[in-house]
Amino acid sequence: MHNTQRPLRIALAGLGTVGAGVIRLLEANRDVIAARAGCEIEVVAVSARDRNKDRGVDLSPFAWEDDMTALASRDDVDVIVELVGGSDGPALALARTALENGKGVVTANKAMIAHHGLALAEAAEARNVPLKFEAAVAGGIPVVKGLREGTSANRIERIYGILNGTCNYILSEMEDTGADFAETLEEAQRLGYAEADPSFDIDGIDAAHKLAILAAIGFGARIDFGNVRTTGITRVTAADIAQADALGYVIRLIAEADVEQSENGARLLQRVRPCLVSKDHPLAPVDGPTNAVVAEGNFSGRLLFQGAGAGEGPTASAVVADLIDIARDEVGAPLSVPVSQLVKMDPVESGHRVGLTYLRFTVADRPGVLAEITAAMRDADVSIESLIQKGRIGDGGDVLVAMVTHEGPEKSVTQALDLLEGSASLTAPPLVLPILPD
Amino acid sequence: MHNTQRPLRIALAGLGTVGAGVIRLLEANRDVIAARAGCEIEVVAVSARDRNKDRGVDLSPFAWEDDMTALASRDDVDVIVELVGGSDGPALALARTALENGKGVVTANKAMIAHHGLALAEAAEARNVPLKFEAAVAGGIPVVKGLREGTSANRIERIYGILNGTCNYILSEMEDTGADFAETLEEAQRLGYAEADPSFDIDGIDAAHKLAILAAIGFGARIDFGNVRTTGITRVTAADIAQADALGYVIRLIAEADVEQSENGARLLQRVRPCLVSKDHPLAPVDGPTNAVVAEGNFSGRLLFQGAGAGEGPTASAVVADLIDIARDEVGAPLSVPVSQLVKMDPVESGHRVGLTYLRFTVADRPGVLAEITAAMRDADVSIESLIQKGRIGDGGDVLVAMVTHEGPEKSVTQALDLLEGSASLTAPPLVLPILPD
Repeated sequence: MHNTQRPLRIALAGLGTVGAGVIRLLEANRDVIAARAGCEIEVVAVSARDRNKDRGVDLSPFAWEDDMTALASRDDVDVIVELVGGSDGPALALARTALENGKGVVTANKAMIAHHGLALAEAAEARNVPLKFEAAVAGGIPVVKGLREGTSANRIERIYGILNGTCNYILSEMEDTGADFAETLEEAQRLGYAEADPSFDIDGIDAAHKLAILAAIGFGARIDFGNVRTTGITRVTAADIAQADALGYVIRLIAEADVEQSENGARLLQRVRPCLVSKDHPLAPVDGPTNAVVAEGNFSGRLLFQGAGAGEGPTASAVVADLIDIARDEVGAPLSVPVSQLVKMDPVESGHRVGLTYLRFTVADRPGVLAEITAAMRDADVSIESLIQKGRIGDGGDVLVAMVTHEGPEKSVTQALDLLEGSASLTAPPLVLPILPD
Repeated sequence: MHNTQRPLRIALAGLGTVGAGVIRLLEANRDVIAARAGCEIEVVAVSARDRNKDRGVDLSPFAWEDDMTALASRDDVDVIVELVGGSDGPALALARTALENGKGVVTANKAMIAHHGLALAEAAEARNVPLKFEAAVAGGIPVVKGLREGTSANRIERIYGILNGTCNYILSEMEDTGADFAETLEEAQRLGYAEADPSFDIDGIDAAHKLAILAAIGFGARIDFGNVRTTGITRVTAADIAQADALGYVIRLIAEADVEQSENGARLLQRVRPCLVSKDHPLAPVDGPTNAVVAEGNFSGRLLFQGAGAGEGPTASAVVADLIDIARDEVGAPLSVPVSQLVKMDPVESGHRVGLTYLRFTVADRPGVLAEITAAMRDADVSIESLIQKGRIGDGGDVLVAMVTHEGPEKSVTQALDLLEGSASLTAPPLVLPILPD
């Protein structure tokens, strides 16, 4: 698509942290980029909401478009870099128009790819133009390329990891300080590790977007964001982290996907949830806003990719790496195989999966409560490996009961909790955290 | 180069563990490979020393060539997969002939690329055919692609890691068992983690080959294997590992490269040597035959790639990933930029580099020895942070004196050792292990 005799000409939509970072990077590393790309990468035009905002970069060399979508109609542009964000709206309109007009698209927009990646990839394939989104998953870590090119010879058996820096920062801070969730979130907001409206991050939606993208590439499945079962970190308390620590674990928000063969074809399990992670596991030392992804291939074995999951520099690094791929003409099917060959996989009912589970109950401090809980466990055939009852927590008269089960089916735990549903002994809904299998 | 309407036809030279693994992988993952590659990858012909050896794979579908080089002249072959090994000899003859005949080459041969990579890459560029060697570095970890494509937007500031599984296995076994080097090496040989002639591994040469390749790609430098300063692990004792442990470190064979700007242009520092690694460092938990590579980019920040560094499955995974790249026509300059644009970098004299150093002396047990050593340190301006003198070691009457210096120039340590050269107090040459900077 790209004629390597002349510069690759790009237009930038969105000039927030990452957009300004891309301009800075292209300037700072101009020589190495040109050597590797085989040509200059030149910003031709830009668009953002406010023309006059000071972004610390000189916009005067670039044409300005008030109407973002107009970038996609410029004859002097080869590739649109979409850094506006949002699953729909202007970002999607721009990406669609660009691909229809035969221009390549590079984006950091995980929500848009999770929701509309199939349609966009089809549009890109139809016109044989690139659609690339390394920056949409795990910031500066080249994990889309890692799966698309690095592990391409493998049947991927499982993909899991830490895909949200905000949650990982909060959980590892709670671990270090002993502070509770709300307090740590506030601190994270103050330091810029969490947004003013943090729900996309702390509810696990951002990690779910990224997981849905990785699962599609790794397993050759149609992107299915709607079936990522997602639990955030808002109910994890300092007491849970202390209990986990005593048992030899840390708590991390883990995004995890695998494929199960069934009579009706392959089924996809995708979930995001806080898990107990053994301190011996390679993901346990991953702290702060760092991201890490593990991919297990049937020949490669376990591969780990780790690095900065967000931020101006790392995200710009991923955006420009995609541009260099395009300049080199090293582009192919956006999702590794053509959309027409991606398999539609139904979601797995995971009740038959076996594992260890951490359960925490907040209960009234009166006789018989422990007997009630343990009876429910017995009746649901959940075998308890260890149990700790801790004195009063917080200001109220509540008591914390934490336990780890022996290995057993997930549905037994669900059944035990159903038996306890509505019990007057429980003063808050129980918290269930799976223990990440090795 | 490759016409995607028909299979990519390959010839395999060398049918050892990896060669047989490639055949097994292509068979086991045929469907996913075809989907991702956009065509079948078909073995057409093979060659190895012994036609009749049982390799656990059926060779009957493939043409056999007694003369390996003849593979490179077959009209029905697009790509030669060279898995013979050895920096020169038949492997090099085959690769040269293949490229001259306009065929692509995929190889796992680190020695050949470290010694002849520039000439081979030039030959590949001249004919516009692919030369790929993901499997030559760190087995199944896609770190060549990680540097070539993943971090391509960055000025790489430093590359370092654990690149030899045999050494890492031996060092982490010594750590776990308290056994000494010779004993652990024997055990590693028995288990297949070390070759009958282990010198390439334990002397650090294998890691040096890999480092020279990564440095070229990361820094845009001409490959310069001759200037990798290499020290193996043979002199590390159980006592050193115990001392390191007491100080909060593990010992790992670290391959490390960086670039220094000088008046006369960029200079390259490449070295392989056992180092003390803080237990907090991401490389410390890397044990057994695992490999891990850290690349620090000026925008990406620190990236870590980790996985199996050798073995049939992982190495075959890397070989076939290269074949898929070729089938997709996603190939470019073998060393990321054309050979003509790689910079010839002189080696750095590293004496001015500052760091912490671990020093271990084996000394006669008599008065005045400690005074002699500490006086030499003082005279060379080496400041000692901690010192441990341990009672008699082994069967003789020797005493172990271990110390860690404060941060200071490397040349001061060298100077102190020069002052002690020939001293009758030292019963063995001292061991110097740098402490890996964070």
